[in-house]
Amino acid sequence: MSAPPTAADRARWAEADRVARPRRLARLRERMADAGLDAYYGVRPEHSRYLTGFALGDGEDRVAGASGQFIVGHDEVILFADSRYTEQAGRQAPAARVEAVYGDLPERWSSLLGSLGGRPPVRIALEASFVSQASWSRLAASSPGVELVPVDGWLEADRATKEPAELERIAAACAVADRALHGLLPEIRPGRTERSLALDLEWSIRTGGADALAFDVACLSGPEAALPHGSPGDRAIRPGEVLLFDFGALVDGYRSDMTRTLFVGEPSARDLTLYSVVARAQAAAIDGIAEAVREGQSISGLAADRLARQVIEEAGHGDRFGHGTGHGIGLATHELPSLGRRATDDPLPSPTVFSVEPGIYLPGETGVRIEDLVVLDQAASRVEFLTSFPRDVVRVG
Amino acid sequence: MSAPPTAADRARWAEADRVARPRRLARLRERMADAGLDAYYGVRPEHSRYLTGFALGDGEDRVAGASGQFIVGHDEVILFADSRYTEQAGRQAPAARVEAVYGDLPERWSSLLGSLGGRPPVRIALEASFVSQASWSRLAASSPGVELVPVDGWLEADRATKEPAELERIAAACAVADRALHGLLPEIRPGRTERSLALDLEWSIRTGGADALAFDVACLSGPEAALPHGSPGDRAIRPGEVLLFDFGALVDGYRSDMTRTLFVGEPSARDLTLYSVVARAQAAAIDGIAEAVREGQSISGLAADRLARQVIEEAGHGDRFGHGTGHGIGLATHELPSLGRRATDDPLPSPTVFSVEPGIYLPGETGVRIEDLVVLDQAASRVEFLTSFPRDVVRVG
Repeated sequence: MSAPPTAADRARWAEADRVARPRRLARLRERMADAGLDAYYGVRPEHSRYLTGFALGDGEDRVAGASGQFIVGHDEVILFADSRYTEQAGRQAPAARVEAVYGDLPERWSSLLGSLGGRPPVRIALEASFVSQASWSRLAASSPGVELVPVDGWLEADRATKEPAELERIAAACAVADRALHGLLPEIRPGRTERSLALDLEWSIRTGGADALAFDVACLSGPEAALPHGSPGDRAIRPGEVLLFDFGALVDGYRSDMTRTLFVGEPSARDLTLYSVVARAQAAAIDGIAEAVREGQSISGLAADRLARQVIEEAGHGDRFGHGTGHGIGLATHELPSLGRRATDDPLPSPTVFSVEPGIYLPGETGVRIEDLVVLDQAASRVEFLTSFPRDVVRVG
Repeated sequence: MSAPPTAADRARWAEADRVARPRRLARLRERMADAGLDAYYGVRPEHSRYLTGFALGDGEDRVAGASGQFIVGHDEVILFADSRYTEQAGRQAPAARVEAVYGDLPERWSSLLGSLGGRPPVRIALEASFVSQASWSRLAASSPGVELVPVDGWLEADRATKEPAELERIAAACAVADRALHGLLPEIRPGRTERSLALDLEWSIRTGGADALAFDVACLSGPEAALPHGSPGDRAIRPGEVLLFDFGALVDGYRSDMTRTLFVGEPSARDLTLYSVVARAQAAAIDGIAEAVREGQSISGLAADRLARQVIEEAGHGDRFGHGTGHGIGLATHELPSLGRRATDDPLPSPTVFSVEPGIYLPGETGVRIEDLVVLDQAASRVEFLTSFPRDVVRVG
């Protein structure tokens, strides 16, 4: 386990981002050119951070209005920031032109597009899955001469392929989370509540090198572990039950995600059996991916999901594994690529990072999930865990 | 300051919600009938909680897919929940019919609407500001016989008027936050960083009766306080500077929001002057509202904003107060009513709760904001602070 990130790490990452942003923008502009588009209107905070450097806190976009949204033109990027964010935008996104936009975007839409320089845009890309129907209608009405073109997944696809400094930060976030769970083990004993353990784990993460949690810590015991997205409650943990932690750290914008199902005291035969099925399912997926990569072949998210799912189906629990096998992670906790039954059979991107997290949930009884992040680098023939916490049976309490 | 919420409080609130939900639904169905609509498709987590009881954690909707979304028909409510949320939905929303919806909503849209009973819906309301253009297009294409009608603000308007058990929870959240800041005062001393103080305050809130934070704690010192939405950094606090905390607690789904600008050591004359202007601006708004209510008259959010803004303008800082004077709060941190330059001149609803939070920000120099929640009950001639922490100059360190 590496040490918490230092100021030198952060400076190196900032510099890497600074250098990478023009390349990221160039890639987007290539897509724009291929599709005959003059501009790209982006609304997602992670895209803003990726392309401009402007960073909102989690959920802050809900109260930020248009701040953080941006327009990429042929030669320049306009970043919206109202008075609350002007100073921050100037610091974090020095390469962008900052415009104070409030609720008046539709009224200013035409003149903002016109100000982009060069010929005024006539076809502009919008993130159709993230622009509301109401906003879309207002923008369309405000500039009849401009065609709004729905695009989906462009930057998501670009972001699925990770730069070295992005991988470093995800690994650093994994290490913080790893250390936090290790540190918590001696504190776990029967009688402690899910909520108090979750809070202790959170504190270890946030005082152990993370800027924040990647998402709220899940700590679920016994039958509660059958809720794949449950919240920690006042339930006290008991011997003979499972204790599931699902958690992640945020380091310099990048996230980790891991799940461990621990055993309080002596495990039941039922839980041990489930655990071994889930562990085999996880290993099947990762080994299958590693084998393909070793042979220089690509593998799809659909095929990777099938590798894990087959093990669980053969054990008779196919209908107790309702979610996908994994998801990409980076600036967002859930991003491309997807490893699931609805994933495409396109090859997984490379280099990339994704979770592998099969689970079995018996409602009202128990639940088991094991989740690790895995980095895949086809060119380097590399398939590696970013999480080092043991994956075999761990007894606590 | 009242004590932290007890299990008995929570049971009372749950029962109040259970009783209130049919009334809330009836009010929505009246709106539907008035507009000639057969159904209402809701996508916002706070609406789901308000009408069905199903509660997602903050930001969880981003990874929950369609889970938590719902359709209100004439006689029944369908709640979407995929396999991860089925059990939770059954517990929290026993009055709703739960349907497992994944990425297949467009394909199932027609049959879901058809299953509502009675005559199949032909005109359905959608929250147009929260349904993406892409989803809207897919739903429209999937059922050409059904008219999608954009509606905006119906439930928001209903939620602006607070029930007694909602007011109780907001007050309880205010009390938790109040206590936490009181408890932090002895810990504040020069040299401590914004980040460490924010973390301590958060800990006090979360172990002092809150289920979570209402939003991330802002702790900003000196010139950083000029960033109305900045994040706490590694800056150490220094004598002679301001120290601004903006924070809130979440209690049983309901939120508080308060800001205090404290003085580390001896305040500068400049900061004291700004503080007195901001305090007078806040008092002007609240006194004006109270006077109107006492005289049995209504007052608008626009007029309330003007009362505060005028004081700041007369002191020559009009252009340093870029945001609105206040916002409603409840299941969301920012909701109706709005007190601002863009607010309507409709009377404020009643009973309701809103923040009053004027501020002055001198970029690169300093910033001052004072924020309290105020409950307004026209029928009871009541205008009252929910926050008891002193509003006058407080020196720390």
